[in-house]
Amino acid sequence: MSAAEEIAKLAKSAFEDSQLVASAERVNALHHIRKALESNKSQILAANREDLQAAQIEVDAGRMSESLLKRLDLDKSDKWDSMLQGISDVADLPDPTGIVSYAKELDDGLELYRVSCPIGVLLVIFEARPEVVVNIAALAIKSGNSAILKGGKESNKTTQLLSQAIATGLSQSSLPATYVQTIQTRAEVASLLALDQYIDLVIPRGSNSLVQNIQNNTRIPVMGHADGLCSVYLDESADVDKAVRVVLDSKTDYPSACNSTETLIVHESLLQSVWPIVGRALLDAGVRLLCDPPTLIALSSLAPQPLNLALAGPSTPSSYRTEHLALTLSVVALPSLPAAVRFINAHSSHHTDAIVAESQAAASAFCRGVDSAGTFVNASTRFADGFRYGFGTEVGISTGRIHARGPVGLEGLVIYKYMMRSTDAKGHVVGDFGAGGKRYKHKDIVAAAVPF
Amino acid sequence: MSAAEEIAKLAKSAFEDSQLVASAERVNALHHIRKALESNKSQILAANREDLQAAQIEVDAGRMSESLLKRLDLDKSDKWDSMLQGISDVADLPDPTGIVSYAKELDDGLELYRVSCPIGVLLVIFEARPEVVVNIAALAIKSGNSAILKGGKESNKTTQLLSQAIATGLSQSSLPATYVQTIQTRAEVASLLALDQYIDLVIPRGSNSLVQNIQNNTRIPVMGHADGLCSVYLDESADVDKAVRVVLDSKTDYPSACNSTETLIVHESLLQSVWPIVGRALLDAGVRLLCDPPTLIALSSLAPQPLNLALAGPSTPSSYRTEHLALTLSVVALPSLPAAVRFINAHSSHHTDAIVAESQAAASAFCRGVDSAGTFVNASTRFADGFRYGFGTEVGISTGRIHARGPVGLEGLVIYKYMMRSTDAKGHVVGDFGAGGKRYKHKDIVAAAVPF
Repeated sequence: MSAAEEIAKLAKSAFEDSQLVASAERVNALHHIRKALESNKSQILAANREDLQAAQIEVDAGRMSESLLKRLDLDKSDKWDSMLQGISDVADLPDPTGIVSYAKELDDGLELYRVSCPIGVLLVIFEARPEVVVNIAALAIKSGNSAILKGGKESNKTTQLLSQAIATGLSQSSLPATYVQTIQTRAEVASLLALDQYIDLVIPRGSNSLVQNIQNNTRIPVMGHADGLCSVYLDESADVDKAVRVVLDSKTDYPSACNSTETLIVHESLLQSVWPIVGRALLDAGVRLLCDPPTLIALSSLAPQPLNLALAGPSTPSSYRTEHLALTLSVVALPSLPAAVRFINAHSSHHTDAIVAESQAAASAFCRGVDSAGTFVNASTRFADGFRYGFGTEVGISTGRIHARGPVGLEGLVIYKYMMRSTDAKGHVVGDFGAGGKRYKHKDIVAAAVPF
Repeated sequence: MSAAEEIAKLAKSAFEDSQLVASAERVNALHHIRKALESNKSQILAANREDLQAAQIEVDAGRMSESLLKRLDLDKSDKWDSMLQGISDVADLPDPTGIVSYAKELDDGLELYRVSCPIGVLLVIFEARPEVVVNIAALAIKSGNSAILKGGKESNKTTQLLSQAIATGLSQSSLPATYVQTIQTRAEVASLLALDQYIDLVIPRGSNSLVQNIQNNTRIPVMGHADGLCSVYLDESADVDKAVRVVLDSKTDYPSACNSTETLIVHESLLQSVWPIVGRALLDAGVRLLCDPPTLIALSSLAPQPLNLALAGPSTPSSYRTEHLALTLSVVALPSLPAAVRFINAHSSHHTDAIVAESQAAASAFCRGVDSAGTFVNASTRFADGFRYGFGTEVGISTGRIHARGPVGLEGLVIYKYMMRSTDAKGHVVGDFGAGGKRYKHKDIVAAAVPF
């Protein structure tokens, strides 16, 4: 058996063994993990400094970016404390498992319950930021899944000690110490991606190329998003002040986030009214505009000319398929709401798209017609986020259409099973039902939890 | 553009165009389809007779099984009428779309709604039985998905006319006529399986080899089950009469169904008590038993000897991994409930497994410890079925752990999207929140439907 298969088998049996452990014990494990991290703080931060020194050499040699180096630093501002607080926050969230979502009495003495339960074994692959190993371990444990984690090689020394603390915390609970395992190499990931008999869900968190590479190399379901190509549409009925505020926030609040807007669609009727004001505000904010001819002409004929007019230039067809992740915005004028909806459905990554409109009918048609995980009215695309949605935590954002869509909270890490119980003196058999026999009652049962 | 890509693009735009059509119109389309089928009954049954004649030649030549031939016949007993009734039944089910499952006020005048919506484009591949084209079309239309259907080549003439009637019915509604399309060749299926930009979910309904072949050849999510390896465990605390009834029904009620039991696990303490009675009942019912040494010895030492004792023989390790789909049952004795749970988790297909037990603690541990879509107490595995569960219809049974698990009703064909609306005079931007700014309220909203 390969090393990867050994790890995967251990994860599966840790998951199976954990099914009889009460969910309160998972919360207990989280508290122990927090304590283990606290008591190993100095060693962990020392290992983190070693990772940082090695990374600094890479940066000096031009082989690593300064921003990647910064993400490695676990001692920066309140990162350590907020990592610990995150564990307690997740521990305090409601238990996502054991919730009954469907319950019927099928016959006298025959009850059916659909109850939420963990998915199984998660394989989570992420890059650079070492605290993610702790975040994800907390989410997996809270939701009852076992996990195999792979961080970036740049933070190997740090994640190794973080993982040891997690294992220490687990060993002080009734959960198996192998409930959360960490691997270090890409070769192990490649082997694990083939083991669909043990691994139930892959969650990649990182660059587009990481996510796409994983999607192309496994038949295990993948939850994640390869890109975030969001757009804002300024409807014929748009209010100019809302247009300026929503577009500016959607583009400039945090340009490298996946919920930032990359494309602005302007209704043709606004080319001489709302668009010049929005365009000027964008240029003033230092946003580079890639415009189609009508929107570019409308800008260049502005008087007085915007200071940063040089930032406006012509778009190409590929502009509208590009996730800029920077202060760059593609702009296009279209003749109607249906044209805008079609354009978005053809070009966006089905993540989040917003309309600025005073017309209720336009807002309603946009929200139904745009086939994305989030459709917003007069609100910034930047609201698409698990914390802002009120989930208490965020597992990731999914652009898939199966299981979980959009920002994903703990609910995305559970599925359900059906439990059935006969309390009849003779048990229940199917042969008693049907032609000439008994009929199914399908009577609703009110139950928050399975009573057995 | 290839023919397959043309079909897939048409399906995607039919889906997108349908998003602004009221859901009542989908019910209307179903009624028109029923009428179109009724008025074309004689031509459809004539085409069906042609398919049957061609199939009879194949059967006579030994190239097709008699049972496949029978499944082709659309005029057998009440098949035609129940196909039509099925359309009306699906039409009458509650609309699975538009249901709000999460609603929060994020701020004064900023509302978030999670609302169920169709998945998109379904590719459904099935074998032989021509009426499935009508069943699946009804399910897809009712849930708001567009569909591409591929039936067995043996029923091509029949499904062609059924599809024409479906298109006729659709054209009498406001839905696009290309909402449901039918394809005829395997080559088209192969091409479509590569088009994940247009097709959102593949549903194979047929043999193990069909399902596995599809799972191995697409990165589109697949909903289905490759096999149904169900088991019954007779606990130490089992009641003998319940054991006999549940085991017999699980095995003999319909042996070729996926929810029939293939493996019986006997607690060692029952080898001289419950097991001989259950074994005798199985042999009397003509069930072939593949036994491990302890269960085989217990049977052969029975007095008086069971009439059909010759049906009992030794098992091999592969017996416990085999979906017999016939009157054959693999039997093994194990020393404890945990051993039985481990055996099931290692051998079953995670479809449905049952325990026969009087002990409440054993029942509870079994239901939690067995990692299957259905865990039943003193009830036959044959109850695992969408109609019996009360879904009103069944899309299929899923042995996956993502999205839908176990018997799947219309709910399995929907996902959700998040709609957000700001009614604030200035619209809503993220920049107003956070340090020194506004805080998210996350106040529950009670709403059955999105109010805009």
